[in-house]
Amino acid sequence: MAKVNSLILSRAESHVDMVPELARYLIESGGKRLRPMLTVASAQLFGGGTGSAINFAAAVEFMHNATLLHDDVVDESDMRRGKPAARMVWGNKASILVGDFLLGQAFMMMVETGDIAALGVLSSASAVMAEGEVFQLAKTGDLTTTPAEYAEVIRAKTAVLFQAACEVGAMSGGADAAGRQALARYGLELGNAFQLVDDVLDYGGQAGELGKNTGDDLREGKMTLPIILALAEGSEAEKASIAKALGDAEASSEQVAEVVAIMERYGALSRTLEQAHAHARSAQQALNILPSSDMRALLSDVVEFSVLRAY
Amino acid sequence: MAKVNSLILSRAESHVDMVPELARYLIESGGKRLRPMLTVASAQLFGGGTGSAINFAAAVEFMHNATLLHDDVVDESDMRRGKPAARMVWGNKASILVGDFLLGQAFMMMVETGDIAALGVLSSASAVMAEGEVFQLAKTGDLTTTPAEYAEVIRAKTAVLFQAACEVGAMSGGADAAGRQALARYGLELGNAFQLVDDVLDYGGQAGELGKNTGDDLREGKMTLPIILALAEGSEAEKASIAKALGDAEASSEQVAEVVAIMERYGALSRTLEQAHAHARSAQQALNILPSSDMRALLSDVVEFSVLRAY
Repeated sequence: MAKVNSLILSRAESHVDMVPELARYLIESGGKRLRPMLTVASAQLFGGGTGSAINFAAAVEFMHNATLLHDDVVDESDMRRGKPAARMVWGNKASILVGDFLLGQAFMMMVETGDIAALGVLSSASAVMAEGEVFQLAKTGDLTTTPAEYAEVIRAKTAVLFQAACEVGAMSGGADAAGRQALARYGLELGNAFQLVDDVLDYGGQAGELGKNTGDDLREGKMTLPIILALAEGSEAEKASIAKALGDAEASSEQVAEVVAIMERYGALSRTLEQAHAHARSAQQALNILPSSDMRALLSDVVEFSVLRAY
Repeated sequence: MAKVNSLILSRAESHVDMVPELARYLIESGGKRLRPMLTVASAQLFGGGTGSAINFAAAVEFMHNATLLHDDVVDESDMRRGKPAARMVWGNKASILVGDFLLGQAFMMMVETGDIAALGVLSSASAVMAEGEVFQLAKTGDLTTTPAEYAEVIRAKTAVLFQAACEVGAMSGGADAAGRQALARYGLELGNAFQLVDDVLDYGGQAGELGKNTGDDLREGKMTLPIILALAEGSEAEKASIAKALGDAEASSEQVAEVVAIMERYGALSRTLEQAHAHARSAQQALNILPSSDMRALLSDVVEFSVLRAY
């Protein structure tokens, strides 16, 4: 990971000062480096983990950070990782363009490996992620959004990058077809679990504990599973309360608390977490075909950690 | 080009309706398809022109259109190709995300060719273009911008994609190293000429004829060569007039006319065009090492056409 970090920093360089300033502000702001870690661990699981795995890991982190920059513009987010979002410091325009730069650099790092099959996996992920973001945008505030549509949104916008991160890691580590497939499935299921937990955390987690950013998804009109489940079960009056707050950037913390109370009344948060647990179990199962090892244990721990965040 | 067009349309497809709606609105809105045409012609010049050249041509057009979508958000442009810009119809958010989708699809089409060297050329172009856009943004309204900085902006934001379009065309057509280098130089010089002419057209062209969009660059604070030359030569009062209108979205057509008058007083538009002509001559010279052929004549005509637009 030290090699990955140093590659990440060197590839955020540019003779245009604003590029590394903005990119490093985001990249160094305490992100978990979860995705590149998955790439490296997936490679090491098969005995690889240097060479092209380093490039793929850095590329995956760049793709993720490019998405964050664009998402914060799209969601009009003020904060990211506990600091003002880059767009609040350098503006929306710079955030869009530096995101594009990071994406271009990501592809350059992939190309340097000469591994065309892995490039296929990552370029496809890049298109699917954007498609998922557009789908989420199209569904914003749409009270008729179904659980199946939500599942497609989180698969595309989040899980596919986890999948690609693990799959190209396995490929660069020398996995056979079955190993590659196992890691792809592991990544996909982990990514689904991860996003479901994120969407529960946005309403205070299992405990429904209200914090500073609680209800951001609600105010942005994001149709996440807790909202979809609450709308499906709630009374007309409860549905009206939800609909009123949904997509209202100025919704009060009292309104958010009211929506969380409705969610708890119908078990919307715990039922969302059950789905996260189901995906987490699938992720663990995917690892079962592989011989037990330290790396396998680490990947298994990542799943545990991702779900435990909700509690 | 019929094959390229049909590939472009099919790759703008998605199960998310908003993606093809927005993408086709832009793609079918009468763009000149200049860049993909250069790719195909460059390939045919060396006897190729089908197979991977088709993919590269469509990929280049997607990269260009992704840039247009993001540029219109960054520049807050209302119109594009004589119609309301996509962002005025679907919003800034969708324009950002569909731009990302087109970029992802572009890389997928490149990857399908399996040509890692050409992928290197195009992914590098993608990063450089974004870098150039950031540089332009950083220089917005900066009265101290030098002609050398301007030259770097237009090379990066425009000419590098022309260069890549021609270079990968030549590569896929089977060019040797000298042929590839000639086409790369041709594309770069053509792109520089093209952007210089565009920047003159924004002030009404050689004739200084004021039309509907005249002065857009001025109102956006873009430091193009006509402005830089006028600022270098103008009196203090003239500089003040320019500085006052520069970056003022509400600058009146009288103010634009005043700035154009200052430019004409110091030959700023015709001197910018002279630079375009010099690049055009270099582009023509680059073709000279190749045997004369219909395709060479066509590429030569493209240069003529690009410069003649200014008159």
